[in-house]
Amino acid sequence: MRLDLDRIRAARRVIDPVYLDSPLYRCEPLERALGCRIGVKLETANPVRSFKGRGTELVVHGLAERGERAAVCASAGNLGQALALSGRPRGIDVTVVASRSAPAAKLDRIQAFGARLELVDGDFELARSHAAELAKQRGVRLVEDSLDVETCEGAATIGLELAESGPFDAVLIALGGGALATGVGHVLKSLAPGTEVIAIQPERAPAMARSWRERRVVTTDSADTIADGVAGRFPIPEVLDDLLQVVDDAVLVRETSIIAGMRLFLEQAGLVVEPSAALGLAAILEDRDRFAGRHVATIVCGSNVDLAAYRGWLSA
Amino acid sequence: MRLDLDRIRAARRVIDPVYLDSPLYRCEPLERALGCRIGVKLETANPVRSFKGRGTELVVHGLAERGERAAVCASAGNLGQALALSGRPRGIDVTVVASRSAPAAKLDRIQAFGARLELVDGDFELARSHAAELAKQRGVRLVEDSLDVETCEGAATIGLELAESGPFDAVLIALGGGALATGVGHVLKSLAPGTEVIAIQPERAPAMARSWRERRVVTTDSADTIADGVAGRFPIPEVLDDLLQVVDDAVLVRETSIIAGMRLFLEQAGLVVEPSAALGLAAILEDRDRFAGRHVATIVCGSNVDLAAYRGWLSA
Repeated sequence: MRLDLDRIRAARRVIDPVYLDSPLYRCEPLERALGCRIGVKLETANPVRSFKGRGTELVVHGLAERGERAAVCASAGNLGQALALSGRPRGIDVTVVASRSAPAAKLDRIQAFGARLELVDGDFELARSHAAELAKQRGVRLVEDSLDVETCEGAATIGLELAESGPFDAVLIALGGGALATGVGHVLKSLAPGTEVIAIQPERAPAMARSWRERRVVTTDSADTIADGVAGRFPIPEVLDDLLQVVDDAVLVRETSIIAGMRLFLEQAGLVVEPSAALGLAAILEDRDRFAGRHVATIVCGSNVDLAAYRGWLSA
Repeated sequence: MRLDLDRIRAARRVIDPVYLDSPLYRCEPLERALGCRIGVKLETANPVRSFKGRGTELVVHGLAERGERAAVCASAGNLGQALALSGRPRGIDVTVVASRSAPAAKLDRIQAFGARLELVDGDFELARSHAAELAKQRGVRLVEDSLDVETCEGAATIGLELAESGPFDAVLIALGGGALATGVGHVLKSLAPGTEVIAIQPERAPAMARSWRERRVVTTDSADTIADGVAGRFPIPEVLDDLLQVVDDAVLVRETSIIAGMRLFLEQAGLVVEPSAALGLAAILEDRDRFAGRHVATIVCGSNVDLAAYRGWLSA
């Protein structure tokens, strides 16, 4: 296990407080719709509208300490925004490599926060390999989401906040590269071992969940989901190793359930969320009996959506 | 001045922490759209989706201390939800009187939180007089928003949080009955006297703003605005007295500007807000020069909207 509780606690002193102590509150209209008690952990009320700032603050702090002045990352859109914004006040020259098919809202904001944007004609995995080449060519730091332990430690600070506010019977966590699930899972297993840690991935981008189930890296040929933030195909072995230690279940959900979850957030909670943030509600919708009457927390990990696409999903 | 800084500080110890320390963050896409630096003070990420819980926690604490078991209030919708939810765990029997034309989403949730709902065929002022009668008949406490100092003190705790995070050049506050503007204004005038305190009301429900300008109570025959949360016609003299001491300007805005503000919150910040919460952005939109380059905070005071009405406004 690469994660350490003392380091995660220390991370709170480095991260800009604007990302910490995010709201956590009951939403009774959602509860009535879903048949269980729901705590909403809202990671969207900050300058980058996702939880990624917690990790990039740590990454950039480390870069600055070592006197490094540049970094490259691949991003589905949220990491890039957060790295750009964390890097800006410290004069870090950030380049973000992303898929041309990433949401325009995310790509626009990466540039608006001052990063250079490089687009690839392919999916997130192509962006990852291109970012690695670019970093090597330039001799600068490659920031790798979920592999770089700071990205997991940043996400893990959400776990500290959940552990303080619980106890919860179950915590529902979007599963992509694995930083959020391993980070939060590690803290909960340490501080609230009675809480079931459930990671959720779209069935159309199931690589990490399948890897968890088979206890070995399973790759997929495609990752075709509206939940762009979790659409990887090549799980990272080190992250899978950690995930196997801290996650109790890895669940796959249908696209229609993700959309139903987004609709519930809007209609019952007044929240616009991106698809990845609705994975938890999707899991409840697909297995109501499992959660009936239990006290569940779900992490609303991001709200960066293209509104036109969002309206299309919800009106379909 | 009925407000006292020590009492407001003490209020923080009584209010459920779920309402305190709400997010305050820069939103750069909004800044680019508006030409000034914007701090979003988000009062919607809590169980009642408005700032009213801060005040009702104090009200109900006082009721419980005196052994009172029932309360009646008139509400445009948000106070009623908050009073119902604050009263429930303490066994307070809450009756809310509201206009039949209040948003259905607000009325439904008042009942869902366990309050009795009485509807009147008329506007908020009729609900107020009916609530007063009802309380007298029953011999129970009438909770009067803005007149009862706890409602102002609760709102004022937002001012403490803004004063800690500033300095701001200006703070934009929705003006209805006046609890929010007098409470936040009092704290800012005490702790951040350089901050301009601006209260904003719809020009179609201008009673309190006109009263402020004329330094005497001015009533209106109608209050016909989509901003249902601030649509009073009969300002309370004691509240006006306080408002005159702590507000630097009272601005009136058009309905079209309120809608434009709501649209900006959705498109640039990913936030669904109710019309009252967009009054601050409406004020900037109507007078960009006044705010150009300044550091402004705006309080997003609620997100309880009927989605059908919301969609209608934004598509018009």
